[in-house]
Amino acid sequence: MESIKNKREKMEQVAKRRFFYVQSFESYGGVSGFFDYGPHMCALQNNFLTTWRRHFVLEEGMHEIDSAIITPFEVLKSSGHVDKFTDLMCTDTVTGEIYRADHLVKEWLERASEKAEAGAKQKMADTASMIDSFSEEDLQGIINTYGIKSEQGNDLGKVVPFNLMFGTVVGPGGKTQSFLRPETAQGQFLNFKRLLEVNGDKMPFASAMVGKAFRNEISPRTGLFRVREFLMAEVEHFVHPEEKEHPKFATCRETSIPLLFRKKGASDDSPQELQSMKMGEAVSTGVVNNETLGYFIVRVFTFLVKIGIPADQIRIRQHLPTEMAHYATDCWDAEISTSFGWIECVGIADRACYDLSVHSKKTGDKLVARRPLPHPVTEERLAPVINKKEIGAKFRGKAQSLILRLETMAEEEIQAKMSNNQIEIEEDGVSFLVKVEKRKETKHVEEYVPNVIEPSFGIGRILYALLWHAFSQRETDEQRTVFSFLPGMAPVKCAILPLQEDKRFTPLLQEIKASLVSRGVSCTLDESKASIGRRYSRADEIGVPFCITVDFETLSDEQVTVRERDSLAQKRVPISALPEFISSLVLEESVWTPGPVPV
Amino acid sequence: MESIKNKREKMEQVAKRRFFYVQSFESYGGVSGFFDYGPHMCALQNNFLTTWRRHFVLEEGMHEIDSAIITPFEVLKSSGHVDKFTDLMCTDTVTGEIYRADHLVKEWLERASEKAEAGAKQKMADTASMIDSFSEEDLQGIINTYGIKSEQGNDLGKVVPFNLMFGTVVGPGGKTQSFLRPETAQGQFLNFKRLLEVNGDKMPFASAMVGKAFRNEISPRTGLFRVREFLMAEVEHFVHPEEKEHPKFATCRETSIPLLFRKKGASDDSPQELQSMKMGEAVSTGVVNNETLGYFIVRVFTFLVKIGIPADQIRIRQHLPTEMAHYATDCWDAEISTSFGWIECVGIADRACYDLSVHSKKTGDKLVARRPLPHPVTEERLAPVINKKEIGAKFRGKAQSLILRLETMAEEEIQAKMSNNQIEIEEDGVSFLVKVEKRKETKHVEEYVPNVIEPSFGIGRILYALLWHAFSQRETDEQRTVFSFLPGMAPVKCAILPLQEDKRFTPLLQEIKASLVSRGVSCTLDESKASIGRRYSRADEIGVPFCITVDFETLSDEQVTVRERDSLAQKRVPISALPEFISSLVLEESVWTPGPVPV
Repeated sequence: MESIKNKREKMEQVAKRRFFYVQSFESYGGVSGFFDYGPHMCALQNNFLTTWRRHFVLEEGMHEIDSAIITPFEVLKSSGHVDKFTDLMCTDTVTGEIYRADHLVKEWLERASEKAEAGAKQKMADTASMIDSFSEEDLQGIINTYGIKSEQGNDLGKVVPFNLMFGTVVGPGGKTQSFLRPETAQGQFLNFKRLLEVNGDKMPFASAMVGKAFRNEISPRTGLFRVREFLMAEVEHFVHPEEKEHPKFATCRETSIPLLFRKKGASDDSPQELQSMKMGEAVSTGVVNNETLGYFIVRVFTFLVKIGIPADQIRIRQHLPTEMAHYATDCWDAEISTSFGWIECVGIADRACYDLSVHSKKTGDKLVARRPLPHPVTEERLAPVINKKEIGAKFRGKAQSLILRLETMAEEEIQAKMSNNQIEIEEDGVSFLVKVEKRKETKHVEEYVPNVIEPSFGIGRILYALLWHAFSQRETDEQRTVFSFLPGMAPVKCAILPLQEDKRFTPLLQEIKASLVSRGVSCTLDESKASIGRRYSRADEIGVPFCITVDFETLSDEQVTVRERDSLAQKRVPISALPEFISSLVLEESVWTPGPVPV
Repeated sequence: MESIKNKREKMEQVAKRRFFYVQSFESYGGVSGFFDYGPHMCALQNNFLTTWRRHFVLEEGMHEIDSAIITPFEVLKSSGHVDKFTDLMCTDTVTGEIYRADHLVKEWLERASEKAEAGAKQKMADTASMIDSFSEEDLQGIINTYGIKSEQGNDLGKVVPFNLMFGTVVGPGGKTQSFLRPETAQGQFLNFKRLLEVNGDKMPFASAMVGKAFRNEISPRTGLFRVREFLMAEVEHFVHPEEKEHPKFATCRETSIPLLFRKKGASDDSPQELQSMKMGEAVSTGVVNNETLGYFIVRVFTFLVKIGIPADQIRIRQHLPTEMAHYATDCWDAEISTSFGWIECVGIADRACYDLSVHSKKTGDKLVARRPLPHPVTEERLAPVINKKEIGAKFRGKAQSLILRLETMAEEEIQAKMSNNQIEIEEDGVSFLVKVEKRKETKHVEEYVPNVIEPSFGIGRILYALLWHAFSQRETDEQRTVFSFLPGMAPVKCAILPLQEDKRFTPLLQEIKASLVSRGVSCTLDESKASIGRRYSRADEIGVPFCITVDFETLSDEQVTVRERDSLAQKRVPISALPEFISSLVLEESVWTPGPVPV
């Protein structure tokens, strides 16, 4: 553990010194939970997004959209976020300091359990380990039972929920209460009908969005893992609730995935177990609920491996029923092992028809899809018997709208109003009885609210985990550190280095740089007076995969030395072959191998 | 004008129907000034960003960063936005409706001038045309003079400034007043020192950022041109205030640019004139202030042409002194001609040292660069004569800090306190006289606050202008519309169409699609029963440059028909050659030419 902490400190030092990321507004004292990404982290993020768009949007034919961040109160009221998107907090009654209640209680229990006797010790540890599943009342109960105080030893106020959304007001009138979105998903749900149309009215299909989201965390901490403003990428896959097969499931049936879940029949408090399973088996045995969920679990897993997370550092964990978000019916997290333990980096949730239903209900704008029924279905339903002539005579100008109202009346409303096979209708103070009859209707088309499977990526978390796994210290000198990013992900692809200061090198350096840039390959030119070894180390520190050195031989043989970061191997490459050689490596169309370059 | 309006309406219909963009939260009644981009607009935006990053960040070696949107009050207080980032508003005293004062006055004047007599008419028109340059008092005066009323004919309240920033509060305590950033620039300024370090402490250099910014417009309108939430891309080029030469200026000296400016010596109310000038001449004659500004004007111009804006629809207009932002000393706008007239799409401002200075002053964190002086400079300055022994004896434990205070005392402070070549120092109630002398100091390094040249891109505006210029109606049938995007910018590169429904086509269609997707080429597969002509039109409507038709001959000759959108020309291409043929066209490595495909 100590060595992990040391390595983390070292990595964070390098990340800060080389401006991967820093706390925002440092010179103004900084604000917790906000980070600025410097050039290398920003490039890493851009490379992440390019790969993500290719792996998901392009290869899966998803429809990417970009919707507004500022979201009206009503939308988030419908989605449940206004009422339920909260964390519990409590306040030090003396200093006014505000704590996140679960964190405070957990830390107190962990500290207290160290000094407690055997019996109490175990109970405290158990309680601490289940902290995520406690309600407001549960936490209040624990605080009362143990007499938990604030960190300053003062009494705590009541445990109360705190809504995590940032509020703002739109327009000069001050009346349009709004929030910064806490997820990108709602913008996708609200555009469902247009997206379905873009997809040629065919189901199933998926939309996608990359964008900033915001959560006003009570006490942000642990580096990039709990921040208030973050970039996320979300996929919403819309599917018939009873047809969750996936057309490409065959391609992932044989892929083994490390799944962490509670065995069937195990008791509610038994722990989850890790098991590597082929996805075909996981779905057929019901461990994973359906093919679509299984397909996305595999796609997420392969994506994480593709960007450079070691496969054995990933596990897919099923949520316990108590820890699920208010909209989810099943949820698996892709967790990555980091210096802070296993961290949720991608959530893969089955949101069922929750969101589309609540918005349809609120707005009257039906977010539904249709499919032809394999066999027409005949159903009996209640319907008013409409005598248009009679209604026309009685209501004249109002007749038209009254008829429409009767024609579109829902069966539930008829049932509620019906008495003696009649319903009473009122229009302009005039009351009127309409007969109701049972009518047979044949349906050829089914109208349904799609279910949604949602893989949701916390990009900052994944990038931080990537930094962690890419980081190492050279065996020969632990002050020399390396980020071993894959060539496609590396923020800077090449460093061009003259062996020493010499005017004859200048045109060559410029020519090499221009030839790489024209191929879209990013490179730095390090002409500083530091030794070549020192400049290699500087490039290693930010994860440059290839160093290109121009030396005195270059002047006669028109070749340069290319040095690979991880193996430290070097080879001579003709300048004329360099752009193709390097760009095929960074596009990951070829891999570095020993031996000469084929010309 | 009528035909332009008709064409605009047609274009906006298509853009809405094919889900390029829609007002956000439509089903909840919509919110003015917010738009959602659908899949095609989102792809267009992604292609824009790829080109932008290549043209600016990669080719100019800029350092791209990604900083926080939520910004503390103090930062924007320093930058002047809290006090000066306002528009003027006035309120209907009866209905409470709020108007943007300049818009209301301008429209009133334009309407009134139509009915006015010759003399008054001209004065009203002149006043309306200068509306951007009026202060709060000016506008109040005009309202009073003409007795201008609200649109409902009611009295107006006082003209008052309204700050355009969206406010929010960070953390649960409710104390950290913050704003959503109105520009990305501040995040770059605050990171100046780290960026300089990333650049190896070398000047000049540029940083860049792509991100959302927010302006709480009083009354947003004219489509995508005045919105409350928008994506922008900004470059901050940091340079010595007296060394604004640009190393690559030679590459743009001969480029002719249409410049709109007021001729030297012309009176303050004479109009600006348009003149196409070589940039070398523009800078040498002082029309454009310096090489760096000139270089960026050319780079912005060539960028806009590269993404498909016709060169003759762009002009570069100099701001009048009265319309400049509070931080700018010179500013040119790249304007694009649209159906709404000339619209500012890129601002290229010289912000001088304004921002770096105000933040340095506020935080004490000096945002400066250094350069070696060509010749050491010797200056005389006042300094206290410090007798350490005497001070030590007198102040003991406090002596150390007192000495430091004297050593670092600024010359201005000494001057202010000095009397009879002595200054009086107080420490712990003990007063003490220190002698002051003139001392010669030799400086080898100059410390300076860099100036900033800032090209700032409103991405939504440029994309809307691009839609406008790409849009046309087929001569044969004006219901058939086309977006003639360049292949590299087009949201969808190919449509794959079976000539008619036939099961034998299915594996071919899938194979073609997979071969294109594996090259990163986006494509749709339109298997609907519509005629081939109808499906071509559908593809034209969203600007697909290449349609690939699989017909019965394909089954035997393994060739497909490729049809080019603008020329309507077709050619047969072997399936085996298709991926290379198409991907080289969409990467713009080749252009469509008549005649057979070389195999």
